[in-house]
Amino acid sequence: MHYYSLFINVLIICSILLFPVSQSYNQNVGPLVKMTNGQVWPKPVFQQNFDEYLIVEPENFHFNVTGYSCDDLYDAFKRYNHMLFLKAKQTFKHDTHSSTNFTFGKLEVLNVQMTNPCENYPSLNMDEKYEIKINNSRGHLLASSIWGILRGLETFSQLVHLKTDGSTFVLQCTSIVDYPKFRHRGFLLDTSRHYLPVQTIIKTLDAMSYSKMNVFHWHMVDDNSFPFQSSVFPNLSERGAFGYSAIYTKNGIKHIIEHAKRRGIRVIPEIDTPGHTLSWGLGGIPGLLTPCSDPHPDRFGPIDPTVEENYNFIRALLSEISELFKDKYLHIGGDEVNTTCWTTNKKIQMFMLRNNMTDVIELENFYFANIFNITRNLKTVAIAWEEVFDENIPLDPNVVVQVWKGDLNSTVPKVMKRGHPVIFSSCWYLNYIKYGTDWPNFYKCDPTSVVGENRLFLGGEACVWGEFVDETNLLQVSWPRASAVAEVLWSNVLNETEAKHRLEEHVCRMKRRGIPAQPASGPNYCHY
Amino acid sequence: MHYYSLFINVLIICSILLFPVSQSYNQNVGPLVKMTNGQVWPKPVFQQNFDEYLIVEPENFHFNVTGYSCDDLYDAFKRYNHMLFLKAKQTFKHDTHSSTNFTFGKLEVLNVQMTNPCENYPSLNMDEKYEIKINNSRGHLLASSIWGILRGLETFSQLVHLKTDGSTFVLQCTSIVDYPKFRHRGFLLDTSRHYLPVQTIIKTLDAMSYSKMNVFHWHMVDDNSFPFQSSVFPNLSERGAFGYSAIYTKNGIKHIIEHAKRRGIRVIPEIDTPGHTLSWGLGGIPGLLTPCSDPHPDRFGPIDPTVEENYNFIRALLSEISELFKDKYLHIGGDEVNTTCWTTNKKIQMFMLRNNMTDVIELENFYFANIFNITRNLKTVAIAWEEVFDENIPLDPNVVVQVWKGDLNSTVPKVMKRGHPVIFSSCWYLNYIKYGTDWPNFYKCDPTSVVGENRLFLGGEACVWGEFVDETNLLQVSWPRASAVAEVLWSNVLNETEAKHRLEEHVCRMKRRGIPAQPASGPNYCHY
Repeated sequence: MHYYSLFINVLIICSILLFPVSQSYNQNVGPLVKMTNGQVWPKPVFQQNFDEYLIVEPENFHFNVTGYSCDDLYDAFKRYNHMLFLKAKQTFKHDTHSSTNFTFGKLEVLNVQMTNPCENYPSLNMDEKYEIKINNSRGHLLASSIWGILRGLETFSQLVHLKTDGSTFVLQCTSIVDYPKFRHRGFLLDTSRHYLPVQTIIKTLDAMSYSKMNVFHWHMVDDNSFPFQSSVFPNLSERGAFGYSAIYTKNGIKHIIEHAKRRGIRVIPEIDTPGHTLSWGLGGIPGLLTPCSDPHPDRFGPIDPTVEENYNFIRALLSEISELFKDKYLHIGGDEVNTTCWTTNKKIQMFMLRNNMTDVIELENFYFANIFNITRNLKTVAIAWEEVFDENIPLDPNVVVQVWKGDLNSTVPKVMKRGHPVIFSSCWYLNYIKYGTDWPNFYKCDPTSVVGENRLFLGGEACVWGEFVDETNLLQVSWPRASAVAEVLWSNVLNETEAKHRLEEHVCRMKRRGIPAQPASGPNYCHY
Repeated sequence: MHYYSLFINVLIICSILLFPVSQSYNQNVGPLVKMTNGQVWPKPVFQQNFDEYLIVEPENFHFNVTGYSCDDLYDAFKRYNHMLFLKAKQTFKHDTHSSTNFTFGKLEVLNVQMTNPCENYPSLNMDEKYEIKINNSRGHLLASSIWGILRGLETFSQLVHLKTDGSTFVLQCTSIVDYPKFRHRGFLLDTSRHYLPVQTIIKTLDAMSYSKMNVFHWHMVDDNSFPFQSSVFPNLSERGAFGYSAIYTKNGIKHIIEHAKRRGIRVIPEIDTPGHTLSWGLGGIPGLLTPCSDPHPDRFGPIDPTVEENYNFIRALLSEISELFKDKYLHIGGDEVNTTCWTTNKKIQMFMLRNNMTDVIELENFYFANIFNITRNLKTVAIAWEEVFDENIPLDPNVVVQVWKGDLNSTVPKVMKRGHPVIFSSCWYLNYIKYGTDWPNFYKCDPTSVVGENRLFLGGEACVWGEFVDETNLLQVSWPRASAVAEVLWSNVLNETEAKHRLEEHVCRMKRRGIPAQPASGPNYCHY
């Protein structure tokens, strides 16, 4: 690949062009970390920059289709036409960065060549590869699928930037060949501990697309509330949600799925059982939850695995959900099951005796055998939390294990050795906040050295559990910290020292686009 | 005082009325901490509730002046007329809390009796005491000053709440006598590490008033940027601010001061010297900063204390500032002075030799003697950070020492023993964030046991330093965590177990009023 040899050459040139001020910069005055201009997040796999800069004028620029097209493509053009030319506030005199922009020509067209018809929904194996060439006043974006085109448009929109005197939009001539390192680059939201308005989720999807993340893992229900409006069992949300205004209607969910797919983002719902289901108990399904006999007689525990009817209920619920959500994958939870509640219940003790179960693990096996039977019949592929693997519960080979407690170096290889696909998230629990610059902690956790090219490693997920996060602070807590995870999952070139400058620009870009991303690395200022 | 004996009686009744659901509440479903309805934050000193509830109808309610009045009073009526009746979203059926509201009558008027004319600006010794009586369909608010009336209106607006079925606004009949424990209840913002838009500061003032805080300590300039627009030295902000859109103009500052005083909030500016002044170095004042000879020859240090002209410059700047800000107090900083930079500078070494100074502390004494001379001439009272006291620099007796490093039990009594007024903030650095429910840490730090009734202890300040806080997350990080500090500084009755329920309501109240207060104690939901 000729790009690669050039790449090394260009590195030297780039490092001079990109940070002209940083050498003499006094660390204590102004922003702590100087930002880049027109650099891409996450870092493309191959990028070769040329000296020339082109001017892009809002009134004289358009996208031109030279291959297949579809509604989603035109929808994306409309979006990016807007985002490309977001106005900046008046900028600052003593910033001399703009002096390095040599402008020679104009870019009036980006030719967009999609070599295959659009697919309807994104999937695990969608092709996200794209190529961009900007040179001699010509722009070209090439990809074999709509997903690659979407990623390329995002990159293109990040190349275009305002000169720091605020006068014109410019971009540097460049050649890019780019594709993700991992197929599954997810973001988990928990809408049970706090209800998150649809608009907050929509904003999250937008922010994900700015960092090329492609899976929204929706941990929809849990102990605290049940916001999913089921047509079959409407009382679950009617009684189990926090309030009438804290329910996801079918229309709301469809809106989210549609918004996501237009950005190449899959939506994988999680219906966590048998634990984490206390709010289900308000929904009036008789015998659903296990009454714990000890130590709190009025307390309930996990779903009662001995009640035949419960499996019919779960089948009906999962069937409704897998029909609504278009993805082939369905997360069935399986974490943190309170088996003590099961073993102290007289009726369950009897059931185990009758069925010659000597250990509660056999009861758990029995429960999950039923669940996997349901997901198999629904033709969905199940994803389960790590515990289901740790406890040696028999799993179909295609069941995906999501590692959230286990170590990258020990647990992940163990799961792959047993032949299961893995999603990893132990390093990326963004809800745990720390004072100061903490994104490097996420950035440093790179699975590549452990998993190599093993395709069983699907990717990872940044998780934002909802105990202390609601619509007031979700986006601030998530961004740009999740962007660090996004780059780890996309790029093969990870360099924290270089990335921190690019991340400053990415923060300002997100803010310009309406995402309230919080400071990444200390004192900074966005000229917008 | 007859209120007190009744108070004990009523406690028992109240505890039944306020948390009717919490006894049987399953901690794992729904909000983790059940919220109160119509309870006041911070907790009033004396409050006696009666069984009766009154309905307040938006169209049939008004404030009636029975004593003095002024524009600020009518302005407050307008504000509270709006805040009293903020609409709620549809609420939730299975919440049976409303069944405890026995409504008998209506409240159509709150008689507001101010027994003295309005003062123009709030001050350290303003009288914030007020009394409220709501009974027999009559409402009465009494105070001797506009400041007490403002605090009383805030309390009244918190008593009025929506029944949880969302149908009507009600309040419980009650008698309140209330006044603050400490006179100085401040909130520090740092607008140098990140520029904070005027609108963000305005929102902060609003939120402060909802918790009866009364001092905005404005740490305006520091190393990273100089956003204050001086008429005398315009280059300081022209060159030292982050950008043209990151400057506080005279009009912006006047707007902030006016907004604050209408809420009974003082604005105390801090001009921190001689350290924390690197951004001043861009302003073109010759010889202002000390060039450090070692170890970074191109680095600058604190203001050069040996240059006569520097004192003229500081005098002119502080004079401009003390004229603009109406408060008698002026914070002159004085923290974290890098004296090594001074002692390694040849010119300064010569100066010390010439003036028989054997220790750098003598040079620091010399600097601050000049500064206190300036503040004395400006007829302002200086506030200085703890270091100035710790280093035994001679201080006028009226200089206020702000303790930020030292311990409540050791440093604070030491300062008071030397006769200086104290502002305390060591416990309340809100910029240090921690995962989870951290407001109790602030709440537990109560100076009362150490300082008793000693009037030299003026109060305290919650501090939000700006390294990782900007307009995206300031309000979320600050609220409701600063509300915990506000209650500690106001109330004589601190009970964390009781307060946590009231804080849940206060969070929802703030959100209803447009303050994005983040979750206080885990999963919750606001019916609004």
